[in-house]
Amino acid sequence: MRGFRERSSVEDALAAALDGIGPLPREGIPVTEAAGRVLATDVESTVNVPGFRRATMDGYAVRAEDTYGASAYNPIPLRVLGSSMPGTGDNLPIGPGECLRIMTGAPVPDSADAVLKAEDTSGSGVQIEATAAVPHGRNVGRIGEDVEAGDRILGAGRRLLPQDIGLISAVGHSPVAVVRRPTVRIIVSGDELLPPGGSPSGSSIVDSNSPMLAALVERDGGIPEVVSLPDQREAMADALSRPDTDLVITAGAASVGSEDRVPVLVGELGRLAVHGITMRPSSPTGVGTVNGVRILILPGNPVACLAAYDFFAGPVVRTLGGRSPASPYGTIERRLSGRLVSQIGRTDYARVVVDGDRVKPIAISGSSVLSSVTAATGFVVVPVSSEGYAEGTRVTVHCYDGGCAA
Amino acid sequence: MRGFRERSSVEDALAAALDGIGPLPREGIPVTEAAGRVLATDVESTVNVPGFRRATMDGYAVRAEDTYGASAYNPIPLRVLGSSMPGTGDNLPIGPGECLRIMTGAPVPDSADAVLKAEDTSGSGVQIEATAAVPHGRNVGRIGEDVEAGDRILGAGRRLLPQDIGLISAVGHSPVAVVRRPTVRIIVSGDELLPPGGSPSGSSIVDSNSPMLAALVERDGGIPEVVSLPDQREAMADALSRPDTDLVITAGAASVGSEDRVPVLVGELGRLAVHGITMRPSSPTGVGTVNGVRILILPGNPVACLAAYDFFAGPVVRTLGGRSPASPYGTIERRLSGRLVSQIGRTDYARVVVDGDRVKPIAISGSSVLSSVTAATGFVVVPVSSEGYAEGTRVTVHCYDGGCAA
Repeated sequence: MRGFRERSSVEDALAAALDGIGPLPREGIPVTEAAGRVLATDVESTVNVPGFRRATMDGYAVRAEDTYGASAYNPIPLRVLGSSMPGTGDNLPIGPGECLRIMTGAPVPDSADAVLKAEDTSGSGVQIEATAAVPHGRNVGRIGEDVEAGDRILGAGRRLLPQDIGLISAVGHSPVAVVRRPTVRIIVSGDELLPPGGSPSGSSIVDSNSPMLAALVERDGGIPEVVSLPDQREAMADALSRPDTDLVITAGAASVGSEDRVPVLVGELGRLAVHGITMRPSSPTGVGTVNGVRILILPGNPVACLAAYDFFAGPVVRTLGGRSPASPYGTIERRLSGRLVSQIGRTDYARVVVDGDRVKPIAISGSSVLSSVTAATGFVVVPVSSEGYAEGTRVTVHCYDGGCAA
Repeated sequence: MRGFRERSSVEDALAAALDGIGPLPREGIPVTEAAGRVLATDVESTVNVPGFRRATMDGYAVRAEDTYGASAYNPIPLRVLGSSMPGTGDNLPIGPGECLRIMTGAPVPDSADAVLKAEDTSGSGVQIEATAAVPHGRNVGRIGEDVEAGDRILGAGRRLLPQDIGLISAVGHSPVAVVRRPTVRIIVSGDELLPPGGSPSGSSIVDSNSPMLAALVERDGGIPEVVSLPDQREAMADALSRPDTDLVITAGAASVGSEDRVPVLVGELGRLAVHGITMRPSSPTGVGTVNGVRILILPGNPVACLAAYDFFAGPVVRTLGGRSPASPYGTIERRLSGRLVSQIGRTDYARVVVDGDRVKPIAISGSSVLSSVTAATGFVVVPVSSEGYAEGTRVTVHCYDGGCAA
């Protein structure tokens, strides 16, 4: 029940958290489920798209030379042999003065070399008139115009956008090899904890960390599994030892008190690389490994838990899933409307509110006050070398909503 | 098979798309499923958090006055009566010179008024010594410190962040009233279309629009349902008439050709408010209503389909789900490294690549070339009043990846 022997810097703790961590192995999934996933390999097309000369306008497939000289004052008659519709392979030979009615996306017959827009014709049925000329090749999409066979259409590591899904579908690439999503076991413990959905009473409190952490893990692409334990050594030792997950995050029982058994257990069961960091809140954070599984020991106070997730757990979850470890929060710069106090030798995660062109520190410093992070626009990081910032200093705000819409 | 009678402006088409659209009714869901959802009502707490005076440090619950004058050179002995652990309601009366061992989060007994940090003590067991003084109230969180009963903790319309989930859980508010997610029927039609996962062959192409649209709808909080139809009037009429969805998006068969039956059918079955807009790509976009369900008619060319989704469908999906209709794309400003050509009277959705401090227009203008939007960083909107921008002009880029990381 004494202080930490030696605290690690934020940088060293993050390095320990990420040590040996890389993207998980690939898995193959249907293209319709791949949005937001990370490509494990380059995607090369084995086909041309389109695979045929296609009309890019509604109109008539013609021999361009037949239309030369056509105008509203000099309409040139054309005989309509039939139609080419999307999906039909109609490939009628067109002779001089002949044409084929054609829809956008339909195959252009070999004997035609242009599509005359519907707007540049008059009449209908089997006999029409060209009222404008169309040059050779106009309104005909060439084979491979969109994608050529052999093209690398998307690179490994890309997080798939909706249009990427469309393109992968169009080239017929299936299944799609993506980085597997990490499974993340979230362990909370405490005899005082009631499960989410319950009501606080007496000295019992409702667990806020596990639903918050589950939401953070999902945001970062992981698959959360929540395990809630009583304050009981054997149960915790068992949960920490099971290797059937990609990552373990614990919340609570993380400090140096005799009941704070998680760091002690991690040290006994495996290796405790870091315990205690020069950061406020979140100083009791720890990093270890048991049975090959990285264990991130987060503080039980919810603000400290969030800060430690943002600094140490989030980068691991994202790296395992093939994403960038970088923060998902957008940033904006604003001048402080008040002093922001810190200490040399300590990194501060200071909650702030953006109000117009100013940013205001939230006075409450307690790491147990969760409403300070629901009221906050985001946070400012005060580095270890700084005593804080004077009013008026321009600072970078990391915004919780991702977009700094305020 | 002629041109549009009268094209609508982008603004008028968007107004028609959003006309009469608002957030859907609420539904109650468990707090553990509420991340990312939009609150339908304010959330007020009915309880104090914490509901008891809690220790904010590990140490000893004391009468502060008993420690006055204590220092390393003048340790003051204290008798340890017992322990207060989180979740136990231990409320032993502490007399002069007595204390209770206490853990962070545990209830402070009524007879104590401060928590002496473990670091400021020496010894253990039933007899310890205070090696520093602690002022009245220090390291004791007051009842309601985080949230007071009656506090409005979160406002209607807020999209719930992970920490919001934690706070809602902590106050025991369950179920959570959120805006229902919109169901979005995506209708694609065409005899040339093979389902996603297939391989293109002959004049058949693999459907790229429905998986792209489904991913866009999910991104914007909707629940997509894909319906793929043959080019057959009755099937389309039936799919357009069913009122069992919140929104219908069609892709393809949207132009003015005789086979482009969606706009015609919508006009026959209900009301076609807009068909044809002064925008490139996406001019064949339409807006209508059938049996009380808004129908958004998007072009079949995939780039045009994406642009029309971004401009018209996305705002409707987001509004139905209680989100802001505003674009989800982040923006950055850069100077053009080449000319960006447009025409007065037409809004352009121009794909661009951000390369360092410059932004380069993508030369390909074809709305069928999907690889132009997978290669693009994002798009620049050239307004209807502009002929385009000269090289070196500073433009705003809307970035597909949300963050303009490039």
